[in-house]
Amino acid sequence: MSRVRVHNFSVSLDGYATGEGQSFEAPFGHAGTRLHEWFFGTRTFRAMQGAGGGSEGVDEAFAGRWGDGIGAEIMGRGKFGPQHGPWADHEWNGWWGENPPFHTPVFVMTHHPRPSVEMAGGTTFHFVDASPKEALRQAREAAGGLDVRIGGGPTTVRAFLAEDLVDHLHVVLVPIVLGRGERLWDGLEELESRFDIESVTTPSGVTHLTFTRRTRS
Amino acid sequence: MSRVRVHNFSVSLDGYATGEGQSFEAPFGHAGTRLHEWFFGTRTFRAMQGAGGGSEGVDEAFAGRWGDGIGAEIMGRGKFGPQHGPWADHEWNGWWGENPPFHTPVFVMTHHPRPSVEMAGGTTFHFVDASPKEALRQAREAAGGLDVRIGGGPTTVRAFLAEDLVDHLHVVLVPIVLGRGERLWDGLEELESRFDIESVTTPSGVTHLTFTRRTRS
Repeated sequence: MSRVRVHNFSVSLDGYATGEGQSFEAPFGHAGTRLHEWFFGTRTFRAMQGAGGGSEGVDEAFAGRWGDGIGAEIMGRGKFGPQHGPWADHEWNGWWGENPPFHTPVFVMTHHPRPSVEMAGGTTFHFVDASPKEALRQAREAAGGLDVRIGGGPTTVRAFLAEDLVDHLHVVLVPIVLGRGERLWDGLEELESRFDIESVTTPSGVTHLTFTRRTRS
Repeated sequence: MSRVRVHNFSVSLDGYATGEGQSFEAPFGHAGTRLHEWFFGTRTFRAMQGAGGGSEGVDEAFAGRWGDGIGAEIMGRGKFGPQHGPWADHEWNGWWGENPPFHTPVFVMTHHPRPSVEMAGGTTFHFVDASPKEALRQAREAAGGLDVRIGGGPTTVRAFLAEDLVDHLHVVLVPIVLGRGERLWDGLEELESRFDIESVTTPSGVTHLTFTRRTRS
């Protein structure tokens, strides 16, 4: 059975996974780059930028897992772009340029569907107005037996966690207090009871937490 | 100069340091003992209970620092007891029995002062209706040059952090989602800018974070 996975999902001490005031210039709002500094040095991130090099330590050990065995991604509209409501046009194709780093079908959850867009490198954006379960059904079908990644943002990850659709969750706790934005943990009381949890701190100062879904009995 | 310190202060992933529904039977409300399981095995906790033994690993390395060089504690009324409003009587002297583990003067912040109570073992409870700054002035005077510990709960720790009165903060991140209760981090946006922060995860599954106040320039 293909699994549902979340990777490299950074949250602040106060549980925010994105800041307030998202815009074209600030995809994570007032959080700026503070939630992802740990990631920028890794080989995985540098490869996404088309660059070589990068760290190969503990942060990379986690970062590098995001793509293995993934056949499709599901993301919220806020991860795709900062627009709200009906699309003014269809010119915006995400923050990632002509060759996005996904290289698989990507399902963007939105109440305002638009035609699918095929990008370079194997990424195709599909726009679906659907429940998490139905979006997952479509993504699984597109993934051809591989795993499905829930790419964020927090509202989307939270929705899939709330419906108990996530098998593996990798959270990166960044020791900052954001104060404002969108929280991951709201409405997920006792989430820990469904997962085996492990933690490790790295020299970059963050703590990686892995949540592995207990086998359903 | 005597320092102001917070030790062994457990918070959940969603930032709660105590649950909802505090009562005589449940000092931490619906959180029960879940925030403090890491602590119960330590030599320090067992010694507080008058018992020997206990772990001497990384959790103990942190737990054992709480008393060294401390000359007084400040606590909120909620740490002292679950009552609200005027005292019905003065029979309640805290959760800790005749010989509380503090062994110093303890200043209980409350809008309803009552006479000081001298307990066995060197603990004296004083009740003060004062600002954090004024409570700290009194506690420092009583501490005779030693450090002052802010003992909790979250409202009290937060108030001292908000006024930049804390020199050392030790937070223990417990990987559970409490969902309800009293948060530590609210109103403390960019707290990290005032502290050097280090983290370490222990085999019990918690992450210890130390916040050390940067030297004032």
